[in-house]
Amino acid sequence: MKAVGIVVEYNPFHNGHLYHLEQTKQKTGADCVIAVMSGNFLQRGEPAIVSKWARTAMALSAGVDIVIELPYVFAVQSAERFASGAVTLLDAIKCSELCFGSEHGEIAPFLQTVYALQKRKNEYDTSIRQAIKKGLSYPQALSEAWKQLRIDGIDLTKPNNILGFSYVKAIVEQQRAIVPQTIPRIASGYHEESFTHSSIASATSVRKALSGSLEKLETIAPYVPSYTKEALANYCSTYGTFHEWERYFSLLKYRLLTAERSELEQIASIEEGIEYRLIEAIAEANTFSEFLHAVKTKRYTWTRLQRACTHLLTNFLKQANGIETPTYIRLLGMNENGKRYLKKVKKTLSLPLVTTVSQLRDDYIYAQEKKAVAAYTAIFPEPLRTKAIKEEYATPPLYWRTC
Amino acid sequence: MKAVGIVVEYNPFHNGHLYHLEQTKQKTGADCVIAVMSGNFLQRGEPAIVSKWARTAMALSAGVDIVIELPYVFAVQSAERFASGAVTLLDAIKCSELCFGSEHGEIAPFLQTVYALQKRKNEYDTSIRQAIKKGLSYPQALSEAWKQLRIDGIDLTKPNNILGFSYVKAIVEQQRAIVPQTIPRIASGYHEESFTHSSIASATSVRKALSGSLEKLETIAPYVPSYTKEALANYCSTYGTFHEWERYFSLLKYRLLTAERSELEQIASIEEGIEYRLIEAIAEANTFSEFLHAVKTKRYTWTRLQRACTHLLTNFLKQANGIETPTYIRLLGMNENGKRYLKKVKKTLSLPLVTTVSQLRDDYIYAQEKKAVAAYTAIFPEPLRTKAIKEEYATPPLYWRTC
Repeated sequence: MKAVGIVVEYNPFHNGHLYHLEQTKQKTGADCVIAVMSGNFLQRGEPAIVSKWARTAMALSAGVDIVIELPYVFAVQSAERFASGAVTLLDAIKCSELCFGSEHGEIAPFLQTVYALQKRKNEYDTSIRQAIKKGLSYPQALSEAWKQLRIDGIDLTKPNNILGFSYVKAIVEQQRAIVPQTIPRIASGYHEESFTHSSIASATSVRKALSGSLEKLETIAPYVPSYTKEALANYCSTYGTFHEWERYFSLLKYRLLTAERSELEQIASIEEGIEYRLIEAIAEANTFSEFLHAVKTKRYTWTRLQRACTHLLTNFLKQANGIETPTYIRLLGMNENGKRYLKKVKKTLSLPLVTTVSQLRDDYIYAQEKKAVAAYTAIFPEPLRTKAIKEEYATPPLYWRTC
Repeated sequence: MKAVGIVVEYNPFHNGHLYHLEQTKQKTGADCVIAVMSGNFLQRGEPAIVSKWARTAMALSAGVDIVIELPYVFAVQSAERFASGAVTLLDAIKCSELCFGSEHGEIAPFLQTVYALQKRKNEYDTSIRQAIKKGLSYPQALSEAWKQLRIDGIDLTKPNNILGFSYVKAIVEQQRAIVPQTIPRIASGYHEESFTHSSIASATSVRKALSGSLEKLETIAPYVPSYTKEALANYCSTYGTFHEWERYFSLLKYRLLTAERSELEQIASIEEGIEYRLIEAIAEANTFSEFLHAVKTKRYTWTRLQRACTHLLTNFLKQANGIETPTYIRLLGMNENGKRYLKKVKKTLSLPLVTTVSQLRDDYIYAQEKKAVAAYTAIFPEPLRTKAIKEEYATPPLYWRTC
């Protein structure tokens, strides 16, 4: 059985994701699609709109065969570390291909770029460092280094090109026997905030249209499959809310104003004395958005700040960034086909397959996941919160039987 | 002008406090009554029902001339440290007497006890240590040591006797020129939870009768002066709530489940591995009361656990317990008479008198106060929370003019 890996967040799952999934199957002819998915917090430093379980349900409904978790330690990170963790896991679970959506849409230039940069690594690294010193953000610095090296490649100011580039780079650097593939994204920019197409919209615009409540569920109907609507409705009626940064602002303020400076300095992404700016701004701010607008600079981009805030909220320490590679494959869900696949490859997996987290009692990476769960569920009133925490620890992987 | 000091929490101010205040004036013939009062968190490890400002207003209405703050670093502590901080401050502000309410009601036995114990200090300390080793709580250990030494003294199982004993001990140990006095408490036990007298009730029973809302305000009318009712009503209509542990349970759970073990070990009162019990119990508990009942043992008394929880909430570190003595006198409020007194003694004060906290920018003790304020106000929705934080930093001392 041939398996293809995809790297997803599904926040929430929409028609663009479905297109990517179907194209992936078609293009690779794989017998099994394995998604490695961020958990409760996402790459750009945000809480996921609904829990990992609800998003796993969407993925399985859409026809993903296996969903595994990208641990927090790799998920809430720059594209490079995010991709590195994801590629390691997809290799560990024996994917022979990885297929990503990109603005560019052709795989050759991604490979060319990675190889060209490998040859000129020193030059490239120096150029990035200099650009960052000049005050540019990381994506800007990449693009600047790019121009200077005059490599005719992909446009690295596009977010999905950056991610794609990072997957290919990780595959090459880790020397994984994984064939990278890409599918052109259609119709919608990653960050687009409003609807511009009749059936394809960005996850950002879908969340924005929902604006945190079930009342607006019908407005997203053209852009998401019915099972997404269903999963969102189920979640919101069980837990009374979607998750968004504003709901966590109160906790973040508490955290920032009660932490010792020496503690703040140990938090990942809190660097260069930014904690002083954060503390000063948050005491005055009434909302998360007000707060970030007050702190944002050319150098401290929105995403970088959001990530720092997520790490503050989950108490994610710098030292955890020393962990180089995932230590387990956590299964969140599968269908019958996925189960068949796992049965076949089980004995050849290069990392332990985890179906119940009691197996991870002493795992450092999972310890961070527990903190993330505690933070993610902290906005629920009791007894929902206790229920949500138990869900993390007691839920067996979801299993979709074909009807 | 002769000043007498009293040590108070006024949580909230009731007729028993008024009795103590009037008896104090009568007994000592002092020209000025100075109250040193806990701030937003109290000796037994609880949030005060209303802020320090609202409670200062009650004190001034009742006829206290000057209110100064007992810093968190000394307030949320065992009787011994609580008393030591309070006595230092009352001495610094030139009180020549200290008058406390006690179950015993006569001052001589307190002095005899303190002197007797000074003489037999080693024996006494050993006895306490052994009792604690046997698993007794601190108050139980005191009382046990007591029995063993066969000193015919006061009953140290009574909470106000313990406090009084601690004041006298602090005066003697610090060699302060302060005359201790005591007034017998009337009619109500410290912890009593229901009303047993027609006009005197414990603060505990008053809070219980209010049960966190303004609706029950009339039920406490017989037991509190009208200005207490007014101050409570004002506070609750401004901030929408009274403060009680249950309102902080969600934050406490967040805090306990996201902190690293190494961080928990640094929190004051977290000792002997109790953090493991706390983490395990809180994940399952839906309320603060459920939580404490699950953790409570003979050794870990309710008060001791509450104090540990308060320190967790405010991130109060063990190292801060190394601070031996207050570094400033923070004025919370005064009346015309108090102002006159301060003018007279101003130049002889042994600690700086602080009327605006910007003077305390680099003070370690005040840094902890700020964390306590951040935690205390964390239950408010915005923009009330920002307002409440500003109130701490921008409120000048209350000033009561005689009409």
